[in-house]
Amino acid sequence: MAHTYEFPRPALTVDCVVFGFDGTGLQVLLIRRGIEPFLGAWALPGGFVRMEEDLEDAARRELEEETSLRDVFLEQLRTFGTPGRDPRGRVVSVAWYALVRPDQHPAKGDTDASEAAWFPIGGLPGLAFDHDHILAAALERLRGKIRYQPVGFELLPRHFTLTQLQALYEAILGRPIDKRNFRKKLLSFDFLTPLDEFTSGAHRPARLHRFDRRKYDAAAKRGFLFDL
Amino acid sequence: MAHTYEFPRPALTVDCVVFGFDGTGLQVLLIRRGIEPFLGAWALPGGFVRMEEDLEDAARRELEEETSLRDVFLEQLRTFGTPGRDPRGRVVSVAWYALVRPDQHPAKGDTDASEAAWFPIGGLPGLAFDHDHILAAALERLRGKIRYQPVGFELLPRHFTLTQLQALYEAILGRPIDKRNFRKKLLSFDFLTPLDEFTSGAHRPARLHRFDRRKYDAAAKRGFLFDL
Repeated sequence: MAHTYEFPRPALTVDCVVFGFDGTGLQVLLIRRGIEPFLGAWALPGGFVRMEEDLEDAARRELEEETSLRDVFLEQLRTFGTPGRDPRGRVVSVAWYALVRPDQHPAKGDTDASEAAWFPIGGLPGLAFDHDHILAAALERLRGKIRYQPVGFELLPRHFTLTQLQALYEAILGRPIDKRNFRKKLLSFDFLTPLDEFTSGAHRPARLHRFDRRKYDAAAKRGFLFDL
Repeated sequence: MAHTYEFPRPALTVDCVVFGFDGTGLQVLLIRRGIEPFLGAWALPGGFVRMEEDLEDAARRELEEETSLRDVFLEQLRTFGTPGRDPRGRVVSVAWYALVRPDQHPAKGDTDASEAAWFPIGGLPGLAFDHDHILAAALERLRGKIRYQPVGFELLPRHFTLTQLQALYEAILGRPIDKRNFRKKLLSFDFLTPLDEFTSGAHRPARLHRFDRRKYDAAAKRGFLFDL
């Protein structure tokens, strides 16, 4: 069935930058393209927006279809529409970024995406389209945001140590942080609940904490300001 | 000439939230629609993206066509695409926000926009489409941003007093700020250059300052953190 319009229209897609954290480094989830163009190349999960669906719904549908991820933190990044960014013609893409917990690991992709895999932020393959550009913008947003607002809990296990939290911040910022200062600032807000649970293993047991979303939202209304 | 595609495509527009400051309050530039739908209603300046133009170019072109504004600060806000937001069918709009100096006042609009006028943020008329929603999102962005990054110089005359700068911050945040604390924080960065110029008039002369973009950019790299 053909669709005819008086004026030409760009095609509209969504693309998702999916961040994960393996305890040491920041990672990005990529899919290997199963169709042309860029057949066989690594790319961000994404696809065409349907006429009846909202933009966020399109992003969530594509994420689930291509990576099996559901119910993740998802926020709109920016829209990329420079003419020539897609060899198929004018394609405008609304980009999103997602934060994924270690327990939300994705299974394999569908026909559009023959494979899905995590890559360390420092060892990414060449990407299809302008996806390296979109990924760089998402990383910049995450780095900017974490300096004034404690985001990133969506990247940690539900119960975590302060050492894990610091490692996450260091991975995102790409530099070491002063431990004492970091703990003092974080604990000056009261949205981290200490638990009566400890890590076990070769190291000295460390106390686990839980993130309290209700207290976080109350603190967010007053406004956060970090300077790590 | 008709344009035919295998799959249906949404139409793509840009819309601009233009902020100004009259020395006392924050203002928004609106246009009165000269065409259907919403003929005669107030709306954000904007229009359809052309196939060969980049998204920012489309926003700047529409701004100039409808309000005569040129060379303003312009940043992408977010893309709005909920089905049903436009009675003409599926229309997805990439929204932008602009900051305009008092000396950049616009002239009248063109045929799509029969009139352009400033409105105080507290006394806005009902707007066409979902433009009240877009405007609220732009205001939230501006309020959030100003707390951790000194933006807003694009809203002031090139030479301004610290009292004017504080009035701008208070207008954006919608609440009074402690004067001593504000000056101390602002002057701790060195991007405000005091001039040998003073205000004249009925009040005690006040020193004028200039914004130094080069020093600002250097400070921005180190990172700003305000807490006003």
